[in-house]
Amino acid sequence: MKGVILGICPAARLVDLTHGVTPQDVLEGQLALESAWRFFPAGTVHLAVVDPGVGGARRALAMRADGHLFVGPDNGLFTFALAARDWSAVALETNAYRLADVSVTFHGRDVFAPAAAHLAAGLSLERLGPPIHDPVRLPLPRSRIAEDGIVGEVIRSDRFGNLITSVDADDVRALEGRGAVAIEVGGRPIAGLAASYEAGPPGLAAAIIGSSGRLEVFVQNDSAARVTGAARGTPVRLCVRPSTG
Amino acid sequence: MKGVILGICPAARLVDLTHGVTPQDVLEGQLALESAWRFFPAGTVHLAVVDPGVGGARRALAMRADGHLFVGPDNGLFTFALAARDWSAVALETNAYRLADVSVTFHGRDVFAPAAAHLAAGLSLERLGPPIHDPVRLPLPRSRIAEDGIVGEVIRSDRFGNLITSVDADDVRALEGRGAVAIEVGGRPIAGLAASYEAGPPGLAAAIIGSSGRLEVFVQNDSAARVTGAARGTPVRLCVRPSTG
Amino acid sequence: MKGVILGICPAARLVDLTHGVTPQDVLEGQLALESAWRFFPAGTVHLAVVDPGVGGARRALAMRADGHLFVGPDNGLFTFALAARDWSAVALETNAYRLADVSVTFHGRDVFAPAAAHLAAGLSLERLGPPIHDPVRLPLPRSRIAEDGIVGEVIRSDRFGNLITSVDADDVRALEGRGAVAIEVGGRPIAGLAASYEAGPPGLAAAIIGSSGRLEVFVQNDSAARVTGAARGTPVRLCVRPSTG
Repeated sequence: MKGVILGICPAARLVDLTHGVTPQDVLEGQLALESAWRFFPAGTVHLAVVDPGVGGARRALAMRADGHLFVGPDNGLFTFALAARDWSAVALETNAYRLADVSVTFHGRDVFAPAAAHLAAGLSLERLGPPIHDPVRLPLPRSRIAEDGIVGEVIRSDRFGNLITSVDADDVRALEGRGAVAIEVGGRPIAGLAASYEAGPPGLAAAIIGSSGRLEVFVQNDSAARVTGAARGTPVRLCVRPSTG
Repeated sequence: MKGVILGICPAARLVDLTHGVTPQDVLEGQLALESAWRFFPAGTVHLAVVDPGVGGARRALAMRADGHLFVGPDNGLFTFALAARDWSAVALETNAYRLADVSVTFHGRDVFAPAAAHLAAGLSLERLGPPIHDPVRLPLPRSRIAEDGIVGEVIRSDRFGNLITSVDADDVRALEGRGAVAIEVGGRPIAGLAASYEAGPPGLAAAIIGSSGRLEVFVQNDSAARVTGAARGTPVRLCVRPSTG
Repeated sequence: MKGVILGICPAARLVDLTHGVTPQDVLEGQLALESAWRFFPAGTVHLAVVDPGVGGARRALAMRADGHLFVGPDNGLFTFALAARDWSAVALETNAYRLADVSVTFHGRDVFAPAAAHLAAGLSLERLGPPIHDPVRLPLPRSRIAEDGIVGEVIRSDRFGNLITSVDADDVRALEGRGAVAIEVGGRPIAGLAASYEAGPPGLAAAIIGSSGRLEVFVQNDSAARVTGAARGTPVRLCVRPSTG
């Protein structure tokens, strides 16, 4: 893919975001992109390939949203960007912007890399193909505000074993305003909110506001995934015990 | 290695192809290069280090083939490039183009990176050392056309668990012209040729024409290596049942 | 982190040294940097994040040493650079050179990347914050010269299973001048010093002078970590049997 890009756009700056997404895990790929894209300069082309449907009926997509560009399979990988005030998307159907021979197993190289390179070289999005008005959406799990707190779930375990949850940081801060917050993971209490990893009780799971704006569960210098046994889908529950004062 | 290169050729564009080759597996390294090099622009310097013989008697090599340059140990890593119409190779013996202190364990840093950087900066191949006329060859396994079909083998499992075979895509297409193709892996039948990963029967192994022009065995959204138990060397057999119509 | 850097310093050349450091292992991170930094051109900004104390009381650091720049947590990661003739360090406290919102879990992105990018763009070190005169030191284990030889230990296992030891190459060479050298790892004899990996006895552990100037223990085309069972902290002992001639 990198060879194809540099052949088309020699001035392109190539940045590897991650090669560690679990094979075929579109949701994990979306999380990686969602937490990183706004930290890149406007005009960046975000090329992502988590593509179990390659060679089949799924469309190939390029999209513009909030001044950034996105290229990859139309399988929900860029759902987060559809929350932008304005976005537009096209299907990558123009043969002139694909390799001459398109394989059925590696559109990253044959379809997406050429499109991304042409965009990086200044081609307008619309030249790549006809508009798409209904990109596939794969919404990330969202937490729910309940009467006495917040109900969410684990959505990912990172390479440190930290558990990223669906619980929004702002909701947690609002709850904290109402009293002491108790937290359960998979029905079992954990140690509550810590101000830093270091402040977590040694060997026990605790929670922290993570860098992507979500509540995370961690164990100091250890793996929360291992210690708690939790994984994607494990319920996470926060409740407040209103101060009796 | 990257520091050494940028010290010699600050304008070099560095692209990581893979860091995932199994230690000491020259054949796997060759496969990674063989499937990628032609997608890079002419003039690219392909620097590769899979080097079990470092510090011993094996020569250090730089080669030009079809307008591309190759630098690494002379152990067969670049055998595919010897199929080019014209190629020339030299032994990296000129001290001026090595680091001052050459270790016995890391020629990637001390010998190959400097040579690659000097080539990228415009040095002519011949300046690096005396010609080599007999580079070591490590031919990739090739399939064989039998009376009723094709006999080959698995040559690699990729990180998705797809099994890359020695069977050439063109041979498969020729066979398809003669009738329905049945496929066996390790003596056991698999589901036949699929037009895409999605078209494979859930949970069962099937075959597909892969992006490097070889037959591949896959399981939809799963690992064919795990499901079939096959690995490098496992026999793969295709036979045709001529149509009775 | 890369997006933040390119937003601040679009001309920056980004080089990934390693993503393979064991989580929270500051010593392993230090070893990776120590063996690589001098091979990069002067003026390079070395940005490293192995940061178990993120969000807590540990300081954030930028340092200049021998014409190179270093940015990361003040936890000993750069101890090797404090051996330079002259060095100076500052605490990263100037808000103008951090992101507007600083998380408690990802200072790599919010504090270190911006500082590194501003340094790469030409900002003087002193502008980043007040001087630090006592950076945290995490000295690497050092071997000790005993009457009949050298006593050291394994400090790391690399991805090939080679065991890097605390024994200095120059000390080994001095010992060799006194007679045949016998080597023990974890109290068990290994095969002695080999001139290359290839020269090691098949299946058995032997020693070699590694590329970072330390004695290493290896098994030809295999993993010394697996074969010997040794790991960080396992004692390594060299002794000389003076020639009787």
